[in-house]
Amino acid sequence: MPELRQNLATREWVIIASERARRPNAYVEERTTPLHTELPHYDAACPFCPGNEELDLEVTRHPLSGPWQTRVVRNKYPALAREGQLLRSFDGVQRQITGVGYHEVLVEHPQHNTSMALMAESDVCAVFDTFRERGLAVSRDPRIEQIVYFKNHGVRAGASLQHPHSQVIALPIVPGEIRHRMEEARRFFDDTGECVFCRMLHDELALGERVVAANEHFVAFVLYAASSPFHAWILPHRHFSSFRVIGDEEISSLAAIVRDVLRRIFYGLNDPAYNLVVRTSPVKEGDSVYFHAYMAVIPRLSRHAGFELGSGVSINPTIPEACAAFLREVAIP
Amino acid sequence: MPELRQNLATREWVIIASERARRPNAYVEERTTPLHTELPHYDAACPFCPGNEELDLEVTRHPLSGPWQTRVVRNKYPALAREGQLLRSFDGVQRQITGVGYHEVLVEHPQHNTSMALMAESDVCAVFDTFRERGLAVSRDPRIEQIVYFKNHGVRAGASLQHPHSQVIALPIVPGEIRHRMEEARRFFDDTGECVFCRMLHDELALGERVVAANEHFVAFVLYAASSPFHAWILPHRHFSSFRVIGDEEISSLAAIVRDVLRRIFYGLNDPAYNLVVRTSPVKEGDSVYFHAYMAVIPRLSRHAGFELGSGVSINPTIPEACAAFLREVAIP
Repeated sequence: MPELRQNLATREWVIIASERARRPNAYVEERTTPLHTELPHYDAACPFCPGNEELDLEVTRHPLSGPWQTRVVRNKYPALAREGQLLRSFDGVQRQITGVGYHEVLVEHPQHNTSMALMAESDVCAVFDTFRERGLAVSRDPRIEQIVYFKNHGVRAGASLQHPHSQVIALPIVPGEIRHRMEEARRFFDDTGECVFCRMLHDELALGERVVAANEHFVAFVLYAASSPFHAWILPHRHFSSFRVIGDEEISSLAAIVRDVLRRIFYGLNDPAYNLVVRTSPVKEGDSVYFHAYMAVIPRLSRHAGFELGSGVSINPTIPEACAAFLREVAIP
Repeated sequence: MPELRQNLATREWVIIASERARRPNAYVEERTTPLHTELPHYDAACPFCPGNEELDLEVTRHPLSGPWQTRVVRNKYPALAREGQLLRSFDGVQRQITGVGYHEVLVEHPQHNTSMALMAESDVCAVFDTFRERGLAVSRDPRIEQIVYFKNHGVRAGASLQHPHSQVIALPIVPGEIRHRMEEARRFFDDTGECVFCRMLHDELALGERVVAANEHFVAFVLYAASSPFHAWILPHRHFSSFRVIGDEEISSLAAIVRDVLRRIFYGLNDPAYNLVVRTSPVKEGDSVYFHAYMAVIPRLSRHAGFELGSGVSINPTIPEACAAFLREVAIP
C-alpha cells in the first residue's frame, strides 16, 4: 500500500509510491558524461581556473595575497543588479519591483576537476566560511530581505560550468514559500512551545533509521517525507535561525558532515547531479525561537512532472528508510 | 535592469532576468529525439495501441462499442491504491495517511504518433469530456479531497510512454500548495470583493500584449509573472471554481483554444516537452466565489536548480511579452 507522508515542519505531503518502488541501488548513475575526476586538473578555457580570473568581476578572495583558496566573483550574467534603487510599481495585474540584489559565484577551489566530495575537509570549511562572510556583507544592504545560498552540481542540477562553485543570491523580497514555512513553524511553536526542527532532530536521532551521519554539532538524515530519492536535511543541534550566526566550530562540523554525506552520494551513486541549499530566516526577522537554519541535499535522480507542478505534492519512488540505510552502508575509500 | 514580478493570484515572485534574457526563438528545440509525427502510426509493443489493450486495467472507453476514441485505464504502476481504508497515523515526526486514491491514465487517441497539437478539435474535446466524466466519478468517493488532471508530453516533462495520454490522480488530502492558493484568492476577495482570476482575465484582455489566443469561452495568455519561458494560463470567462461543472459548450471552446496554443508551441518551438495542468478547487469546498478553475501550459525549456529549490522563486530568462508575441506570430500550416 502506498503512503502519503507529511513533513512535520513544512506540512508538505509526498507520496511514497511503494507499488512502483525502486531499490536505492537502481539509482546508481549510468553516466553519459565523464566523472569529475576524469576532467583535466586545469582548463585553459575555464574562467574559474587560476590564471584565467576575470578580475573586474572579483568581489573578494582568500587569502588576499599568494595563491587563492576561494574566490567570490559577481555572476557574469546576474539574475539581479547590484546597483539601482528599490522601486515598487503595483498596477493591477502588473506588480513589480526593480530587480536589485546580489548574484555572486563562490569559486570553491583552484583545482578544476574536484568537488566537495573529493576536497579536504578544510577546503569545504573554507567554502562555508566564505558563505557566512558574504551573507554578513550583503545583509548590511538595507534593500536585502532574503539570502539564498546554494550549489548546483552536474547538468541535471542546473550547473553550466564544471569548475566547483556555489552561488549566493540576495533578494529584495521574502519569497512566499519562505513566509509559508516560517508561518508553519510559528504555528507549531504556538501549539507546543517547541521549535519544530528541534523536535524533528530529536525524533530522528531517537528513531535512528533515517540518520545518515552525525557529529558534534550536526545530524544528517533522509527525510521521513523525502520528496525525492535520498533527499536529506542537515540540522544543527544548537537552535539558531539565521545561517549568519553559525559559529566557527559549527562551520568545521558542518563541513565535515556535508563532505561525509556528499562522499556517500559520490561513491554510492556514482557522482549524480545534486543541489545543496541553505535554509535561513529572512534577514530582517532577527533571531527566531521557532525557525531553525538547516541545509538540504537534493540528488536530482527523478523528474518533476505535471502532477508535481499541478499539486505541489511529489511522488517519491523510493523508501526513505532504505535510502538512508543505503547511504550508511556505502564503502568510502 | 532585471525585474521581480509577482503573480497577482498566487503571490509568487519570479525574476525576469533581462541581463541574461534570451530571445524566444532561442528556445526552438534542437531535437535529439524524433518528432512525434516521425514515429510509427502503430507500435506492436505499445500497451495503448488498439489490439494491445490490457483489458483487466480498463476503467471505461468511448464509445462503448466499436473502435474506441478514448480509453481510461488504471495506471499499471499506480502512485495510489484504489482499495483500502483511509487511515491516519500521527506519531511525532511520522505523520502518514494510507495512500488510497485513484491514478488513471486517459489514452487520448487510438493513433500512436499523434498529439493534442495534431488531433482534430473533436478529438481534443473527447479528451476533456473524459476528464470531466472521471472527475465526476471519483469525486463521489468520500475518501477523495483533491483531483489533479494533468498531461506530460515528452521525456523532459516526465512522459515515459509516447502514445498520447493524460492522467488523473485523485488524492485523499488537499495539498498545502492548493490551500495556500485558495487562501490568497480568499484574501483578494475579502479586500476587493472580486475574484482575483476574473480580475486577471479582465486586465490581460484590456492590455492585450500577453494574450496568445481567445475565443467565446476562454482566454489564453502568457503570465505577467511567468515562471518559465512561454508559461501560460487558459482561463474561462465564466466564473466557476471546479472543473467538474464545466459546460458542454465550454468544453468545446476549451478544446479549441488548448489545441490552438499547443499548435503554436508545436510548430513555433519544434515540439518541445510540456506539461498541461488543470487547477480546480478541492472536492469538498463546493462552488467558491473567490477561486476560479483554469488550465496551465508549461513548456519544459528551462531547469529548476538550487535557487528555485531553496526559495520557491523562479528565474525566467525570457520576457513574457516577447514570448506571447512569438506565439501569436507562429505560422500554423
